[in-house]
Amino acid sequence: MLIIAEKLNGTLKKTAAAIAARDVAFVQDLALRQVAAGAAYIDVNAGTAPAREPDDLVWLVDTVQEVTETPLCLDSANPAAIQAGLARVKRPPMINSISGERNRIEGVLPLVAGNAAGVIALLLDDNGIPKDVEGRMVVARRLLDLTRAAGIADKDVYVDPLAIAVSTKQDGALVALDTMRALRAEAPEVRFSVGLSNISFGLPIRKVVNRAFLTLALQAGLDAAIMDPLDDSLYSEMLAAEMVLGRDRFCRKYTSAFRANRIVA
Amino acid sequence: MLIIAEKLNGTLKKTAAAIAARDVAFVQDLALRQVAAGAAYIDVNAGTAPAREPDDLVWLVDTVQEVTETPLCLDSANPAAIQAGLARVKRPPMINSISGERNRIEGVLPLVAGNAAGVIALLLDDNGIPKDVEGRMVVARRLLDLTRAAGIADKDVYVDPLAIAVSTKQDGALVALDTMRALRAEAPEVRFSVGLSNISFGLPIRKVVNRAFLTLALQAGLDAAIMDPLDDSLYSEMLAAEMVLGRDRFCRKYTSAFRANRIVA
Repeated sequence: MLIIAEKLNGTLKKTAAAIAARDVAFVQDLALRQVAAGAAYIDVNAGTAPAREPDDLVWLVDTVQEVTETPLCLDSANPAAIQAGLARVKRPPMINSISGERNRIEGVLPLVAGNAAGVIALLLDDNGIPKDVEGRMVVARRLLDLTRAAGIADKDVYVDPLAIAVSTKQDGALVALDTMRALRAEAPEVRFSVGLSNISFGLPIRKVVNRAFLTLALQAGLDAAIMDPLDDSLYSEMLAAEMVLGRDRFCRKYTSAFRANRIVA
Repeated sequence: MLIIAEKLNGTLKKTAAAIAARDVAFVQDLALRQVAAGAAYIDVNAGTAPAREPDDLVWLVDTVQEVTETPLCLDSANPAAIQAGLARVKRPPMINSISGERNRIEGVLPLVAGNAAGVIALLLDDNGIPKDVEGRMVVARRLLDLTRAAGIADKDVYVDPLAIAVSTKQDGALVALDTMRALRAEAPEVRFSVGLSNISFGLPIRKVVNRAFLTLALQAGLDAAIMDPLDDSLYSEMLAAEMVLGRDRFCRKYTSAFRANRIVA
């Protein structure tokens, strides 16, 4: 499973302060620690006002690329920011994200083909997040029609089925998991990604909830997650779940992580 | 999910010593702590030589029943021990276990109907543990023919699909999970139980592996587990998984456990 490391996100207080202060050391340290912890992509989200965002994202991109070759995941709803980031990346990035919303389709989708290693596609549109699996499948089919027409291979589309916080919707995780299973049956090459921590919003000791959801999502075919690779308990559960699901030959990944002191009870 | 508390088991060193020494305080304290931690049944296994086992199990049964009304799970391969325990229980116990082995069928199965609240049925026979799902289904069908003929309702049969340690068989958990799904489709009233910690045999930091397997087994329809209710991280994952699976209305069980300081990161 690919880890898209989540911490260089301007909606997080410390990262926001570092972006405002152009704190190179903070950003590079956090990037390197996430890489060391297993990040396949480093999400970069400036989280600033639209007028500032392209400059701030470019600064993040440049600053991170000075110290690591790990590719980036350009995270913005703002086409101008994505475009500015794309002009600076040294390796094909992930783009986070498109959705069925008109502004994403018109503004972000055209930037993907030829420029990105993949794109995260959220199953919502201008009417919001569909409540049930069938509603999400309608959005998914429409999105895949558009990505295919834009020349993007299904294997480069990371569908986020959108797990609604279980504190607000009892079947929030189940709808997401069932959507993954239904869509995989229709479009077997499509990949899946989730923003892992949404599921636990509003609950105490969120890590425990995120962990259980990660295991269930891996069972349902998760390929990637935007998550905190520095959370060793989450990382441990990811490796244990992949092993229990028969995906770790001779338990090599799990036992290597143990020897590297990454497995915590 | 029903917790069958595992710690009063004579194959565990401290419990063995307590049984040998007739240490009432140790046994009663461990029983009460497991009850306080959520045990629905307390497994009692003397773990001693066949000639001593009936007396030792009776002592365990009497000692535990002095301090709690929580029902017991009589755990032995020895029909004489089960029979001796049954003569002393104050409430219908679980019996652990029958299997497709001739000695269990002839010795233990006849003791179940009318005496027990349920029986754990292991999917193995005198040829050993079948390697694949179809082999286990053959054993399961034969066992259910026998339990039905003995007057035991399917809902009182807790089938253990036998998860082989993932360190020795890469698909050890998958075969068990798939067997659960296949058998539930054929016999929807049958329940499922696992001895949780088998899956992690031979691996370091076993708790992490047990946790991930518990979540996957709950998804596959687990009804009970022989496990350590004093392991708060396992208990936390159980509640989180049930909540994420949509089985905890208003997140009440999870948040109550949090307020009782039972949820640990």
